Amino acid sequence: METWDAITARRNVRAYTDKSLPANALERIAQAGWMAPSANNRQHRDFVVCTDHEQLKELAAVWQYGRHVASSAATVAVILPDVDNEHDRELDQFDAGQAVMAMMIAATDQGIGSGHSSANDQVLARKILRFPEDRYCAHLVAFGYPGDRPLAPIKKLNRRPFDEVVHLGTW
Amino acid sequence: METWDAITARRNVRAYTDKSLPANALERIAQAGWMAPSANNRQHRDFVVCTDHEQLKELAAVWQYGRHVASSAATVAVILPDVDNEHDRELDQFDAGQAVMAMMIAATDQGIGSGHSSANDQVLARKILRFPEDRYCAHLVAFGYPGDRPLAPIKKLNRRPFDEVVHLGTW
Repeated sequence: METWDAITARRNVRAYTDKSLPANALERIAQAGWMAPSANNRQHRDFVVCTDHEQLKELAAVWQYGRHVASSAATVAVILPDVDNEHDRELDQFDAGQAVMAMMIAATDQGIGSGHSSANDQVLARKILRFPEDRYCAHLVAFGYPGDRPLAPIKKLNRRPFDEVVHLGTW
Repeated sequence: METWDAITARRNVRAYTDKSLPANALERIAQAGWMAPSANNRQHRDFVVCTDHEQLKELAAVWQYGRHVASSAATVAVILPDVDNEHDRELDQFDAGQAVMAMMIAATDQGIGSGHSSANDQVLARKILRFPEDRYCAHLVAFGYPGDRPLAPIKKLNRRPFDEVVHLGTW
C-alpha cells in the first residue's frame, strides 16, 4: 500500500474477524516497533506478542474497556522500565508512542486493523505476561482483520480543526 | 513510496540541503501529525511549524544538541499542556510520540529527512514560538532534504537483537 494511504486509513478497529495473522504479517508489525527510534537510541521498551486465544481472553481483563483484546488475532504489550524519574518515564512514553504508531501503520499496510488498550491492572498484567518487577505494562495494542469494514483512507476525521492545531511561525 | 519502504527508510537525518519544502509536502507532514490518534481522542497537542530561516536559527539554541534545527527547511514544535498530573503528562507524551512518528513516516514517503531535538530551554522556546504559559514545548522535529545520502530502506540497524526485544507469549 502507498504510505499516505496507510497513514490515512489507520483507524481505531475494535471488532475483528476470527482469521489469524500470517506469521510474516505479525513479524512485520513487531519489526516496525523494534526499528522505531528512541531518545539516544536507548531502546527502553520490550514487546510481548500474544496470539493464544485463552491468554488474550485473560489479558482483556487488564482494562475495563479492553474487551477488544479478547477477540484480537494478536495483541502486543508494550513494556517499559518502572522508574521514579518522571523525565525518564515521559521520554519512554514518547518513544513507546513512536513504536506503537509504526506498528499500526505497518499493520494498516497489510489490511490489519489495530486498537489501543490501557493496562490498568499491573498485577494481573504481570501474572499473565511475566515481565520483571522493575517493568510495567504501559499499553496493549490489539491487532486483527477488521470485522466491520476494510481499512480505506478516511475522508472525514473527528479532530479539532486543522488550522486550530497547526500554527504557522508562532502560536 | 510503499509503506514498508517508508518505515524502513526513516533514519535520523541531521544534515540538510538548502532546498525548501514544497508547501504541499509540509502540509502532508502536518496533516499526519494532526490525524494521529490520542487517548480518548483528546488531542492534547498543538504544532507550531517554523520555516523562517532566522527563526530556525534562534530555535536551534533551545537545546545544546539541536544545531540541525538551524539548517532544517522546516521544524515542527510539539506543544503539550504543562499539567501537574503525571499520568496525564505521560499519556500526552505517548500521544506526541504517535504524532511525531506519523509525521516522520509521511516525510520519508516524500524523500524528506527528519531529526528529533529536545527543547530544554522553555523560556527561550516560549519567547520564539509564543505558546501560552500553560503549555510547554515537548519536542522539536526538524525536516529537510538529506544533505548526505537519499533515504532508502536500511539493511543493518543499530538495535538490541530482535529476539531480545520481542518476546512471544510471555517475557
